[in-house]
Amino acid sequence: MNKDDLFKNVISHAKEYGFVFQSSEIYDGLSAVYDYGQLGAELKNNIKTYWWKSMVQMNENIVGIDSAIFMHPKIWKASGHVDGFNDPMIDNKDSKKRYRADQLLEERIAKYEKDGKTDKAAALEEQMNEALKSENLPQLKVLIEEHEIACPVSGTRNWTDVRQFNLMFSTQMGAMAEGSDEVYLRPETAQGIFVNFLNVQKSGRMKIPFGIAQIGKAFRNEVIARQFIMRMREFEQMEMQFFVRPGTEMEWYNYWKQARLKWHTALGTDPAKYRYHDHTKLAHYANAAVDIEFEFPFGFKEVEGIHSRTDFDLSQHQNFSGKKMQYFDPELNEEGKPYGNYVPYVIETSIGLDRMFLLTILNAYEEQDLSEGDKKDSRSVLRLHPALAPVKAAIMPLTKKDGLPEKAREIMNKLKLDFNLQYDEKDSIGKRYRRQDAIGTPFCITVDYDSLQDNTVTIRHRDSMQQERVAVDQLEKIIGDLVSWKNILS
Amino acid sequence: MNKDDLFKNVISHAKEYGFVFQSSEIYDGLSAVYDYGQLGAELKNNIKTYWWKSMVQMNENIVGIDSAIFMHPKIWKASGHVDGFNDPMIDNKDSKKRYRADQLLEERIAKYEKDGKTDKAAALEEQMNEALKSENLPQLKVLIEEHEIACPVSGTRNWTDVRQFNLMFSTQMGAMAEGSDEVYLRPETAQGIFVNFLNVQKSGRMKIPFGIAQIGKAFRNEVIARQFIMRMREFEQMEMQFFVRPGTEMEWYNYWKQARLKWHTALGTDPAKYRYHDHTKLAHYANAAVDIEFEFPFGFKEVEGIHSRTDFDLSQHQNFSGKKMQYFDPELNEEGKPYGNYVPYVIETSIGLDRMFLLTILNAYEEQDLSEGDKKDSRSVLRLHPALAPVKAAIMPLTKKDGLPEKAREIMNKLKLDFNLQYDEKDSIGKRYRRQDAIGTPFCITVDYDSLQDNTVTIRHRDSMQQERVAVDQLEKIIGDLVSWKNILS
Repeated sequence: MNKDDLFKNVISHAKEYGFVFQSSEIYDGLSAVYDYGQLGAELKNNIKTYWWKSMVQMNENIVGIDSAIFMHPKIWKASGHVDGFNDPMIDNKDSKKRYRADQLLEERIAKYEKDGKTDKAAALEEQMNEALKSENLPQLKVLIEEHEIACPVSGTRNWTDVRQFNLMFSTQMGAMAEGSDEVYLRPETAQGIFVNFLNVQKSGRMKIPFGIAQIGKAFRNEVIARQFIMRMREFEQMEMQFFVRPGTEMEWYNYWKQARLKWHTALGTDPAKYRYHDHTKLAHYANAAVDIEFEFPFGFKEVEGIHSRTDFDLSQHQNFSGKKMQYFDPELNEEGKPYGNYVPYVIETSIGLDRMFLLTILNAYEEQDLSEGDKKDSRSVLRLHPALAPVKAAIMPLTKKDGLPEKAREIMNKLKLDFNLQYDEKDSIGKRYRRQDAIGTPFCITVDYDSLQDNTVTIRHRDSMQQERVAVDQLEKIIGDLVSWKNILS
Repeated sequence: MNKDDLFKNVISHAKEYGFVFQSSEIYDGLSAVYDYGQLGAELKNNIKTYWWKSMVQMNENIVGIDSAIFMHPKIWKASGHVDGFNDPMIDNKDSKKRYRADQLLEERIAKYEKDGKTDKAAALEEQMNEALKSENLPQLKVLIEEHEIACPVSGTRNWTDVRQFNLMFSTQMGAMAEGSDEVYLRPETAQGIFVNFLNVQKSGRMKIPFGIAQIGKAFRNEVIARQFIMRMREFEQMEMQFFVRPGTEMEWYNYWKQARLKWHTALGTDPAKYRYHDHTKLAHYANAAVDIEFEFPFGFKEVEGIHSRTDFDLSQHQNFSGKKMQYFDPELNEEGKPYGNYVPYVIETSIGLDRMFLLTILNAYEEQDLSEGDKKDSRSVLRLHPALAPVKAAIMPLTKKDGLPEKAREIMNKLKLDFNLQYDEKDSIGKRYRRQDAIGTPFCITVDYDSLQDNTVTIRHRDSMQQERVAVDQLEKIIGDLVSWKNILS
């Protein structure tokens, strides 16, 4: 299967089996917004749990918070988002369509490269990067005109000037007669951690180095949102800010760079599908940055970033709020250093939950050929890690009569206290196995006539398709051992 | 302790120990928005888990989804929120303060009652309700003027007309040259379930009766938000919509009315603190409705609602989207009924997660007098159900030397795969016990010199304050048994 087909098939599989639906689909959809269906919600929750347990439960010096989406508008002034979180936009006057100026140029660069004009591509890339870095918007337009870039819709080169467009959503809060306040939907969860630094450090008696983790929604008014759930206007982040003594940040940066890749590969994903991408151009707040990239069908793309953010954010909040965002380091003081007060440095790990979800189903999906000789057969199987699987086991009576459903439900009623299960008594056992393969259920448990006699059942394994006969009393342990978080936490 | 003091003390306890912080506190706060701190986030997650397991994992015919906050704007037209989700507001021209007209009148009614003028109170209440029901805004102003209600700030009766104010937050989505679209932040999670009804029913092969559950954020631009996290502008709901055959809705309404109260009391809360409040005035979409009320320090207040919503929502979406929101009932068809297609009726259970959180800490909090004779002593203890406790156990070496910390960490490293733990080696054991009592930790595990010899530790129980000596190998089972969800799921 080629990569385009794989991507298309996974998108359609995700809809068919209730993982991801287009938002507001019956109203013809809302652009770049998606809903997680009954199996997607479970898988997403399991990914969250894996991250939370790995970060918070396993690390004595990391705690998790849950801060609100609405924050004081000054926070986004301090963070630089009000002034700097922009895309350079250009409109075509004929089609009335709007484009990101840098993306128009990047497409042209890609075309030059495809045509073998590597010198031309390199030159344009350098000019574009220089213009972006110095925020020279007129120069971006000059480049678009010089390279004769036309609107894909109208085909004309009748362009407006390039303007900055802020990516934050804003709304009006309050109903005071004298006017409401404009507030933003947070474009990242990180700032919710920074502004709570003092509260958490003091109430939790945290000692540096320590981390604060958070999972939550963020919002960006992306102009060109695409590639399914890869880039959405409403998305979810799992971020951790690790506060360290200034001067130790590179040590911790390297620690988290390793630790985070290990988190990904502990799920059993082929390590060759991951790579590091070190940033050469650094954001204004960073002194080191690396992406963990995954090989999506459309190429290696960022799924997680590890950033050494220096003391930029805490210092900005100190300046804008007037509150001292400092830590008193008792150890430094004991060592006879002149003073133990400082603004901590920060290492951030930031992963896109929706991208992680997409990566997970893309990596798990297989259309397996099961043909033997002339007998054609195949199955769609999601080889999800058992700890992430939405349904842990399916309980199936062989037939709908003779007390088999009752026996199956008796087993189910016991196991459902521990595991998310499905009960299925419709169609042949073979068809039922296929349905469970398609949603990644690691175990199918079949109740047959022997079960009524000797209290045993058949367990059929998703990946090997092998069956074995086990005592009903053993089920809890067999399933529990395989789906346990212990297998992947470290 | 009187009720006002209890409420104040719990709010301050929640801040001191990292349960709830005012949002954007270093910027002097954002009105009616709160952040959950390092222990609050854990407690909130545990409440979510309890609800999700009870609804989704335990019920074969209920599945959970996770739909986006952004939805197509037509959805809120169909649901009635664009036209009907309003508060009647009035401004005082001198103070420039805005008030809800009905709340001004309600305060006056309460004053009449307090003064023994019950006839006057009853008459005004009837007139107000009539005006609200018929949306007669001029009449509301007439009542305010007739009863000589003055602005509490300016003291004058110089009022504007009464106007409707919509409670939905709106924002602009997209960056198209021809103008962006206004979208709303959802004011309830329920509609995300209704518009996904067909997707879930078909992809999940669900048969009526079945339910769809969801946990998620909702937003309301409350004019007067108050009472800590009781009424916030950004809040979280846990809602379940149960789709049933028309004519069977009262049977299911009664079923969920009982089941939901049982969910609350299974946590061990005194049942006398709960009561039902049947609605006499029904919303336009409902044919029956009841609140489950909890006795907060400020009186019995709604924490959960069970509503028989008829086929109102699905029918509205059918009308507005043009898609058939119907279910084909194979059983009805088999019985030889003329047709098996219908728009299902809906029973909704809707609980405010933040209110449930508030209820939980209020109910758990105790300032316990431990004085013996002249020896004064006391403790603050959170008697949380062990399954909900943010920290399951604290591991404490008796002293910081002689290998006790190493032994303690060895125990911790094994147990932390299963449980959220704290490690504490600072201050006396007594002080450390008190700190854990204050955050509701059910177990304190002390490692002493004997532990090095015989691999046993002391377990100290939060509620009884009793200690016992147990083998280290027994810890996982002792803790696991007490904190297990099995104890409360049914």
